[in-house]
Amino acid sequence: MAKKFVYFFGPEGSEGDASMKNTLGGKGANLAEMCSLGIPVPAGFTISTDMCTVYYENNRNYPPELKEQVFENLEKVEEVMCKKFGDVKNPLLLSVRSGARVSMPGMMDTVLNLGLNEKTLKGLIKKRGDERFAWDSYRRFMQMYGNVVMGVDGEHFEHAIENVKKKNNLKTDVEMTVTHLKSLVAEYKKIVKKYTKKEFPTDPMEQLWGAIDAVFGSWMGDRAVYYRKMNDYPDKWGTAVNVQAMVFGNMGDDCGTGVAFTRNPATGEKVFYGEYLINAQGEDVVAGIRTPQEVTIAGSRKWSESVGISEKERKKKYPSLEEYMPEVYEELVDIYHKLENHYRDMQDIEFTIENKKLWMLQTRTGKRTAAAAVKIAVEMVNEGMISKDEALLRVKPEQIDQLLHPQFVKSEKAKAKILAKGLPASPGAATGQVVFNADKAMDWKKQGKAIILVRVETSPEDIGGMDAANGILTARGGMTSHAAVVARGMGKCCVSGCGAISIDYKTSKFTVKEEAVKEGDWISIDGTTGEVILGKVQTEQPKFEGDFDILMQWADERRVLKVRTNADTPKDSKIARDFGAEGIGLTRTEHMFFEGDRIKAMREMILADDEGGRKKALKKLIKHQRDDFYGIFKEMEGLPVTIRLLDPPLHEFLPHEPKHIKEMAQEMKVSEKKIKEKINELHEFNPMLGHRGCRLGITYPEISETQARAIIEAACDLTKEGVKVFPEIMVPLVGKSEEFTLQKDIIVKTAEKVFEEKGITVEYMVGTMIEIPRGAMTADEVAEEAEFFSFGTNDLTQMAFGYSRDDAGKFLEVYKETGVLTVDPFVSIDQEGVGQLVEMAVKRGRKTRPNIKLGICGEHGGDPSSIDFFHRCGLNYVSCSPFRVPIARLAAAHAAINNDIVREIKKTMEDAYGTIEGAVKSIYKELEKRFKKN
Amino acid sequence: MAKKFVYFFGPEGSEGDASMKNTLGGKGANLAEMCSLGIPVPAGFTISTDMCTVYYENNRNYPPELKEQVFENLEKVEEVMCKKFGDVKNPLLLSVRSGARVSMPGMMDTVLNLGLNEKTLKGLIKKRGDERFAWDSYRRFMQMYGNVVMGVDGEHFEHAIENVKKKNNLKTDVEMTVTHLKSLVAEYKKIVKKYTKKEFPTDPMEQLWGAIDAVFGSWMGDRAVYYRKMNDYPDKWGTAVNVQAMVFGNMGDDCGTGVAFTRNPATGEKVFYGEYLINAQGEDVVAGIRTPQEVTIAGSRKWSESVGISEKERKKKYPSLEEYMPEVYEELVDIYHKLENHYRDMQDIEFTIENKKLWMLQTRTGKRTAAAAVKIAVEMVNEGMISKDEALLRVKPEQIDQLLHPQFVKSEKAKAKILAKGLPASPGAATGQVVFNADKAMDWKKQGKAIILVRVETSPEDIGGMDAANGILTARGGMTSHAAVVARGMGKCCVSGCGAISIDYKTSKFTVKEEAVKEGDWISIDGTTGEVILGKVQTEQPKFEGDFDILMQWADERRVLKVRTNADTPKDSKIARDFGAEGIGLTRTEHMFFEGDRIKAMREMILADDEGGRKKALKKLIKHQRDDFYGIFKEMEGLPVTIRLLDPPLHEFLPHEPKHIKEMAQEMKVSEKKIKEKINELHEFNPMLGHRGCRLGITYPEISETQARAIIEAACDLTKEGVKVFPEIMVPLVGKSEEFTLQKDIIVKTAEKVFEEKGITVEYMVGTMIEIPRGAMTADEVAEEAEFFSFGTNDLTQMAFGYSRDDAGKFLEVYKETGVLTVDPFVSIDQEGVGQLVEMAVKRGRKTRPNIKLGICGEHGGDPSSIDFFHRCGLNYVSCSPFRVPIARLAAAHAAINNDIVREIKKTMEDAYGTIEGAVKSIYKELEKRFKKN
Repeated sequence: MAKKFVYFFGPEGSEGDASMKNTLGGKGANLAEMCSLGIPVPAGFTISTDMCTVYYENNRNYPPELKEQVFENLEKVEEVMCKKFGDVKNPLLLSVRSGARVSMPGMMDTVLNLGLNEKTLKGLIKKRGDERFAWDSYRRFMQMYGNVVMGVDGEHFEHAIENVKKKNNLKTDVEMTVTHLKSLVAEYKKIVKKYTKKEFPTDPMEQLWGAIDAVFGSWMGDRAVYYRKMNDYPDKWGTAVNVQAMVFGNMGDDCGTGVAFTRNPATGEKVFYGEYLINAQGEDVVAGIRTPQEVTIAGSRKWSESVGISEKERKKKYPSLEEYMPEVYEELVDIYHKLENHYRDMQDIEFTIENKKLWMLQTRTGKRTAAAAVKIAVEMVNEGMISKDEALLRVKPEQIDQLLHPQFVKSEKAKAKILAKGLPASPGAATGQVVFNADKAMDWKKQGKAIILVRVETSPEDIGGMDAANGILTARGGMTSHAAVVARGMGKCCVSGCGAISIDYKTSKFTVKEEAVKEGDWISIDGTTGEVILGKVQTEQPKFEGDFDILMQWADERRVLKVRTNADTPKDSKIARDFGAEGIGLTRTEHMFFEGDRIKAMREMILADDEGGRKKALKKLIKHQRDDFYGIFKEMEGLPVTIRLLDPPLHEFLPHEPKHIKEMAQEMKVSEKKIKEKINELHEFNPMLGHRGCRLGITYPEISETQARAIIEAACDLTKEGVKVFPEIMVPLVGKSEEFTLQKDIIVKTAEKVFEEKGITVEYMVGTMIEIPRGAMTADEVAEEAEFFSFGTNDLTQMAFGYSRDDAGKFLEVYKETGVLTVDPFVSIDQEGVGQLVEMAVKRGRKTRPNIKLGICGEHGGDPSSIDFFHRCGLNYVSCSPFRVPIARLAAAHAAINNDIVREIKKTMEDAYGTIEGAVKSIYKELEKRFKKN
Repeated sequence: MAKKFVYFFGPEGSEGDASMKNTLGGKGANLAEMCSLGIPVPAGFTISTDMCTVYYENNRNYPPELKEQVFENLEKVEEVMCKKFGDVKNPLLLSVRSGARVSMPGMMDTVLNLGLNEKTLKGLIKKRGDERFAWDSYRRFMQMYGNVVMGVDGEHFEHAIENVKKKNNLKTDVEMTVTHLKSLVAEYKKIVKKYTKKEFPTDPMEQLWGAIDAVFGSWMGDRAVYYRKMNDYPDKWGTAVNVQAMVFGNMGDDCGTGVAFTRNPATGEKVFYGEYLINAQGEDVVAGIRTPQEVTIAGSRKWSESVGISEKERKKKYPSLEEYMPEVYEELVDIYHKLENHYRDMQDIEFTIENKKLWMLQTRTGKRTAAAAVKIAVEMVNEGMISKDEALLRVKPEQIDQLLHPQFVKSEKAKAKILAKGLPASPGAATGQVVFNADKAMDWKKQGKAIILVRVETSPEDIGGMDAANGILTARGGMTSHAAVVARGMGKCCVSGCGAISIDYKTSKFTVKEEAVKEGDWISIDGTTGEVILGKVQTEQPKFEGDFDILMQWADERRVLKVRTNADTPKDSKIARDFGAEGIGLTRTEHMFFEGDRIKAMREMILADDEGGRKKALKKLIKHQRDDFYGIFKEMEGLPVTIRLLDPPLHEFLPHEPKHIKEMAQEMKVSEKKIKEKINELHEFNPMLGHRGCRLGITYPEISETQARAIIEAACDLTKEGVKVFPEIMVPLVGKSEEFTLQKDIIVKTAEKVFEEKGITVEYMVGTMIEIPRGAMTADEVAEEAEFFSFGTNDLTQMAFGYSRDDAGKFLEVYKETGVLTVDPFVSIDQEGVGQLVEMAVKRGRKTRPNIKLGICGEHGGDPSSIDFFHRCGLNYVSCSPFRVPIARLAAAHAAINNDIVREIKKTMEDAYGTIEGAVKSIYKELEKRFKKN
């Protein structure tokens, strides 16, 4: 028997089903599935993806059986649709579409109305009685086919239309009469001849095979090949070809076309929601030339109220489908229930009504807002439609970010003028007056102004100004630049690395091309898209209801990873705790040295010539530090708090600009020369690889001692007050176990001294960051003394790749374009490279200390795909900025579910199947089993 | 039977031998060995290192049997020496010394004359007839014992001496009479009482046990513990105690003392060479108060000629030992022959003559100059004394560096004033006039002046000036700073990171404390020691003869690793080839862009706004590049040459100082603003991790294309001329295999184009640097396309440790002091950490490409201990700067020999022994077998 390459589908059933995506492609499988459900779908057939492989294996030739099978199936379509392909009386017209197992850009799109020629055209006119409709259909078909199948540049056809309109003084396409269209068809024929040296095919069968060839040919088109390479999809997959009978919604007032959602895609509310147009084609609904009408009466009334139309007028001019064609509406309602129940998800459906007959053209899972996703998922569990696991997977972790930050009011945003685009560094929207320096930002804030801080780049000196601003815009720096990291930590909107703006601090303005924006001018920035907008745009806080909390509880029940937060202040700690953080994974102590008088004492320490001088200055700082820790510990009562000892190089605490140096000199009563000398002495060529982290604590043990003392004193004081505290003291930048041991000695000795002084002891841990490749590789030695590891994957990525995150912007874009990188490794952890270091450190750390606590506090701690990796590595927790805590909770649940599934599937496969086909089937069944609520 | 803790040695034989270093310590084992050879050594005994362990295990108590064994052995000593310990008539005096298995600072030194008290003193006077000698001996004993054993600060004793001299108006110690010495002894007693609250012990046995306690106690002294920790020596080793009879060379004219070398330690010549003093103690020879006389007649004559003394006067006043005591001399000659033959190496011996009786006090392997080491090693092979392997091991690779660079004339250096000390960045000595900028250095050079270029730090702009200078001195930067690396490459002397000097470019001077050195002043620098000297010091080129070549040939026969060089010019290539380089492992192409007009074209490329502009500028460079490669290929005819594509970030090619920016603007006819903007645009926070290496080649493919073209064109041209070339094109900074593949594509396509144009093909390879941790970890993927790896261990170290080599100076010193690092990882590869990356890349690279060629071109390629590691890793070659090629050749031979030995020892051990003792014995025997010439 010849191999089966063609699969029929039609209103009375089909040869395929939804499980056959690999053979029929996504579209084909879905059409077949709908048919199997008894839903009226225009008949058609799918040429399988296997054919594509055979086609290429045979040097772009088809096996003889294909023609036969196509012919047989075409006959079946003719029979079902009661029309004949190429018939001059009642011609069957076809659509031809590509369809691989996943949606793939670069493949051939649709060819409609295939089968038309001057003869069948006459039949169409006779049958339908609408000459203009027929000629316009023919003209459209030629244009599509000429372009997509025959490869003629679309511009030539557009140009011909323009000429006709110009010549006849027409303004729009719809003004073209049959005469105009006829002349256009003649012109199109000439164009095709000119550019392809071929006649436009008039034989319908030739047209059909031409379209099939074009679909298979597009599989090896440059863009498709490139896309597969990028996504690591094998060429062997192939594409299917879907050939389907045309139906028309534009043949009179008993015709129409529409789209609908089974639930509200904006709010998630369980109401049928859709729009339709009478006597129109599918594309007319989308094009927005005519105002579509509502499908339901309820929807229609709501609409008429909002635009101020009386119920009488509405009923007359804009009746709902429910009113206009009640039988069709009833059928549609039946179908949508069937589809939603069948696919167990909100569906986005397309339908056409041809002479009162309802045809379904598409059903697919509907896109929805974050709020809708949450509501639908939770309600479907309550309805018994899906399991909690599936509900969790229905909401993308990244999506819920929308629910946590202010957004622009949509209608306002639509009117805005977009000035430039930078990197979407920290989500949310903000509007305010432009200010170029941190001090002024703080002043203006006090005056009650809304501010956007605009800087070439930010440095720790700007923290105060960043805190005062509604949003931050920088001209330089990537997704993990100082501005981006700090802003995300603050939950503040930030657009970074906006290279298009050129800032001139001297004249207090920035320019984008010709546009100049001065200090005090209003701008708005969107940290979710990276857009910079001229003028004010109103923002609103998104609301979410109880469903969100329910979903997050389910996530918490399901996840294995704990979720902590990175927080440096009691305020941030509270936000994070409210978001569900289970402790602090990283408190950076350096930010604490910038506020108020502290920076003065810090600078005094840096300028000191000896240990004595440093100790004197540190004494001034210790009270502040202790108060900071006291506040944070109190806010996190009962939860662990990891505090990192001083990390950045000391030069970050000194001023850079002459004006500030002068101020500092006056304030501290030292010469400017001395300050400049110190700045010079501390200058580093590569500060990222310089005198920082535990290297500071080893050269100046008194710094570590002071910090340890502040931590332990605060912990003791709170313990006395009955507050439970769990301090975890973290030594940064350890590359050799000796570094850690030296620092631990200081910490332990200091703690013991404090315990004696306070007459109380507190449980505490001492551990380290693993952020230096060497530290990861020798983790077994480090773990002999370290009680916990926290992976600093930012630095680990910088050093494993040799990329400075502040500078990598210069080549990361090119790297993505050329395919060297598929994703920014600072956004999502590089599992193949940097991941090896994490896995190595986990394994080796546990070797010498089996119960070692393992976490991650780099930026990757809030990235879902990284969280999946950390789950698989077996870490105990991830830590991320407060506003990402809910995202991490959900992502951790996803990781647990997905990895359980993978494990079970693997087991099932190993148990039961030996073949690829069998494996795929088993995966499908397993998924079905898990997701179908029993 | 009680355990044996005490081992006797004496002129008639001993209980121990040289193999028992672990039990007897180094000193004890050597004394025992000499005795066994029948050499006259004052009798004594050694308390074993086991006792030390027992002592500490028993809370600092001795087992009862020790007293017994010490007593027995003391009796034996008395018998042999015909004196009695504590006897009032003929007292035996003892020396007590510590002695662990390796020489170890911080342990107790010597106590001499032990056994003296007011009674035995009288016996000594009676027996020896020299009252002053006796009282002086007593005073010295009290001072030593009081300090070393009883812990009284030595200053108190010195102070007492000063008081006596002041009171009696004496200028030197020797003027003190018996009366003075007696009063001093009385004073010493008071001092001891005051500071220890104890009487000075008068009982000789009490003195002896006090000294033994002190030796064992010193094993746990802070310094000794610290030193062991640093060197990873276990506490269990313990120290031995050596108790030996005193002999005196200062009891009259039939007494004397001397030191001698069995061969000349300066030249290696096979002549007996030594000095002695009549009626003197050992320390007098060293102290240099009296002029020592020569041991041999030949030596004595040579000396008298050099100082202009007649033969008559010489014979009378300064007779040689050969003339003065011919019998003793004969005996000494016999002994030295015996010792050299026994130890099979040049010996440094100490002897004392007491009343015409010769006593040997020490023999040890003599220190020697590099030239002597080479000569002695080669001659001993010719004499049949040692094997070639042993000869090779006798010369330390680092040592021969002395033979390759100019050195200060010793006598001149002795008079020099040392201003400051920096890092010994590039060996050799240089003298010249101070110049502070590169342009002036080149001008002055043209005027025929000798120059030392002094800079805060150097940058690629200074290359011309560095080349013009005799030596380079920088205030900042470590052993692998730009200055250091370039200077070593040039074989030019350099002192870097000399923090003590403060440079003021404006006034053209530098200051060290109060001293100011102006432009044009003469200074001298020693790149081997790091010394900076005020004024001119004459230098000389060390000479070496045929022996050196012979030794290097033996090394070449023995080594497995090939040795290549890092060279950027035909000149350097020639030097390296003359030194034995077997190819070039690294040609940096960036240096080529600084000379003459090239920098202009390079800057034009950088300033270009688009690919077209860049290509235009590159066209100007290609001819120069081709000529460069032509010259290098020709010089290296028949050998492989690895060329690295452009590596440094582009900003390095732009000027930094306003003056130079102005010049560039005028020259290139562009605005200063444009240049400044470009500098600003290219500025990087961490250039080491920035836009460099293959990241440049990927963003600007035209650069790689141009370089590949220049290489292949030069190779084709030479091939046509019949010159054999083997180009290896190297892509720098690869962290992902995709980076390499993209660059390789460009190179291969370009090469094919050139082959077609030239009508000839040339064999070539395309490979990569492994210098990014991620590149090492994913080496299996990289090796799928890369034909060779060259490890860039400088960058690999920077990134694995997270140290910027330019900045690490700020903490590396502290790290060494605190024991975090035992060695600078930029000098010697960190085998535990960075080494893992190398091993990983070797293993994974060979997995996907078994015949991959592996080399290393980082600075470590010239470091002997790193070479040993690379040998063990199984690399194919190491590459180092031209002047280190001979060192690397020798080190590679060492690596081969040592690893063969280790392998054989391991095998022997595994075969034959199960115990530690057995293993140690087997090692010793194996070494003996290998090194004893059959």
